[in-house]
Amino acid sequence: MIVEIVSVGTELLMGQIVNTDAAYLARRLPEAGASLYHQVTVGDNPERLREALLCALSRSDVVITSGGLGPTKDDLTKDVAADALGLPMELNPEAERRLRGYFESRGRSMASNNLRQAYFARGAALFPNPYGTAPGCVIERGGKAVIHLPGPPREFMPMVDASVLPYLAARLGGVIRSRYLRLFGIGESDAETLVADLMDESNPTLAPYCSLGEVQFRLSARARSVEEAESALDPLERAVLDRAGQFVYAKTDIPDDTMACIAARRLIQSGKRIALAESLTGGLLAASLVAQPGVSSVLEEAIVSYANSSKIRRLGVSEESLREHGAVSERVAQEMAEGIRKSAGVDIGISTTGIAGPDGATAIKPVGLVYAALSTKDRAVVKRLELNGRRDDIRLLACLHATKLLLDELGGAYGG
Amino acid sequence: MIVEIVSVGTELLMGQIVNTDAAYLARRLPEAGASLYHQVTVGDNPERLREALLCALSRSDVVITSGGLGPTKDDLTKDVAADALGLPMELNPEAERRLRGYFESRGRSMASNNLRQAYFARGAALFPNPYGTAPGCVIERGGKAVIHLPGPPREFMPMVDASVLPYLAARLGGVIRSRYLRLFGIGESDAETLVADLMDESNPTLAPYCSLGEVQFRLSARARSVEEAESALDPLERAVLDRAGQFVYAKTDIPDDTMACIAARRLIQSGKRIALAESLTGGLLAASLVAQPGVSSVLEEAIVSYANSSKIRRLGVSEESLREHGAVSERVAQEMAEGIRKSAGVDIGISTTGIAGPDGATAIKPVGLVYAALSTKDRAVVKRLELNGRRDDIRLLACLHATKLLLDELGGAYGG
Repeated sequence: MIVEIVSVGTELLMGQIVNTDAAYLARRLPEAGASLYHQVTVGDNPERLREALLCALSRSDVVITSGGLGPTKDDLTKDVAADALGLPMELNPEAERRLRGYFESRGRSMASNNLRQAYFARGAALFPNPYGTAPGCVIERGGKAVIHLPGPPREFMPMVDASVLPYLAARLGGVIRSRYLRLFGIGESDAETLVADLMDESNPTLAPYCSLGEVQFRLSARARSVEEAESALDPLERAVLDRAGQFVYAKTDIPDDTMACIAARRLIQSGKRIALAESLTGGLLAASLVAQPGVSSVLEEAIVSYANSSKIRRLGVSEESLREHGAVSERVAQEMAEGIRKSAGVDIGISTTGIAGPDGATAIKPVGLVYAALSTKDRAVVKRLELNGRRDDIRLLACLHATKLLLDELGGAYGG
Repeated sequence: MIVEIVSVGTELLMGQIVNTDAAYLARRLPEAGASLYHQVTVGDNPERLREALLCALSRSDVVITSGGLGPTKDDLTKDVAADALGLPMELNPEAERRLRGYFESRGRSMASNNLRQAYFARGAALFPNPYGTAPGCVIERGGKAVIHLPGPPREFMPMVDASVLPYLAARLGGVIRSRYLRLFGIGESDAETLVADLMDESNPTLAPYCSLGEVQFRLSARARSVEEAESALDPLERAVLDRAGQFVYAKTDIPDDTMACIAARRLIQSGKRIALAESLTGGLLAASLVAQPGVSSVLEEAIVSYANSSKIRRLGVSEESLREHGAVSERVAQEMAEGIRKSAGVDIGISTTGIAGPDGATAIKPVGLVYAALSTKDRAVVKRLELNGRRDDIRLLACLHATKLLLDELGGAYGG
């Protein structure tokens, strides 16, 4: 099953928006057993859109469009596609009812152009849109299919998960299930090498994705039933854990979960309170944790102690340690973590100190030298790191290592 | 002059990388007087790449590829394009010398496949790559041109600026110069309305770009000389300032500068020292400022005082104020800013407090209610904000408003 993505919109074409929709869909298509060979982007121009759709239909089984489903006169995708397929546009009563209900429930009157969002090519099957007013749809014609999805990522991505992948899997006669294992402490190519032979299977599939410092394995199975798919995933998961289990810190059902949010959720579950002392990470560690709603119940405070005077005054780091070992040292990292734990009166203190560059390196302390430390009343841990990359990369990697210290302290099963 | 972008790479096609290159290039093409109607993405597959190139050449004057210039066997772009154009590949002695010099200067031996990066279609003119080993190039043939650029954004984007835009402008007989005005406190559509008539000109051009909470105007002129281009920009800039000057907080020569980095640079220039007290922004404000190298000389510390106990202990916020007004109040914001200024012993204290949601709202304090405050020994300023959006949006907007307080305090010319 060959799929092609046609992204529609002048803002996209002109680069005012980066095409995260296409990247997201492309990453998930293999789960449904689909192959992708072309992505194209055109503006809100009916002739070029029509040409792109016909070209895509000539070489693919399924064409998926994003964008151009809204109420304005620039939103042409459905009309142009219906015309290209030789189908009339018809008002969908169910879509109209929902649209009117949407505006009524917000106490707003509906401008007449909004009704365009309830028109679809004859025979279209609708995909509900819980996050916006424009439903998606699929139109089957001559053994091929055209799928229309809304452009805003907050509407597009949930519709891919809820409607598009199940539709595509059903086209091949089945359902799909996916799990995600998140790894830390191993590079992408090393991770791939460990599981290389498992990646050759076509069902279930194993695919690695790499972001800065982290690797995610996606395990997907297509089968006739959910139970069958889950059963197919179990041995694959065991095989991955046999090879790479020591690097796996979490198993989730959603793609692209972050280590910080996973750690924050485990922290909330644990009920332990935490405080942070950040130097080179400059607030990033705190910011990554507070991305998780509810963290305010367990995060007491964070001190970004950039200056030595702040380390002394706020954290009780000793002047002697700063003088003898320097601010970037195991000793100072440890005193920062212990100092923040005690002065904030919490269970866990975490600290970071290091040299993000481009300046600040010395003969014995290179750019990228970082210490991350954790302190509880029972123990103290310090990690010494030599990180590579630009200033921003080094700070992000330092955050990941500090967050990993927290995950290790919280322990527990990797599921969660 | 019609330009088409062909992005090459299986990682891009499969969504493992988001196509920021194409968005960046698309945004800048109008500066060079180029029109863009199609963007396509193909994998590292010679047949489909060839087909995409021929299709693009049939409908465009200039085809710009990204990716596939590296040393591996997957890097096929130059070979496929040369074949499609009917040109032989030749070793470029200058490129070979630079490549060998690159490895020698790093004390590394050069694997033989690296030499592929020094081969180009006959007649190609090279674009230097200061940030990597693969040069770009342009090949002119039959009145059309094919431009090859490296895929990594850190190499791609500088090459667009330094080589591609000047080449395209020269094709139309001239040079281009751009300036950027950054606006805050006005929405995109309102900003557009103010300058709508100025946006109709084809040279010099005025184009707005919107990011969360901010608007950037790009002013570009093509002319026969740099002086002539600058002279054409001056009256356009004056006209924009006449209409929207009250919202303009900076003028820069580089696109996509951030308000935080601009504020951090002005702070460094001023020599004033600062400290932050963050509640809902949770470290984001500090993190945005420390993205600017050198800020450690003026940023004493930041306290992320999530809990009330932290606000009391670290910042000296009074229990009475917390009890009577609540943590999210003008009074507490003011006490936080003053408290951090005094306890850190700095010139400027800045604070944020608010409700990011989704929880935490009360009958009189909705999600999005935010206070940002600034304190110096001479004055105190508090801004009350009602912000819309998701949790992350509210926190980012709160950071921008707090940063704007700092910019206002630092004053000075908008150039910088």
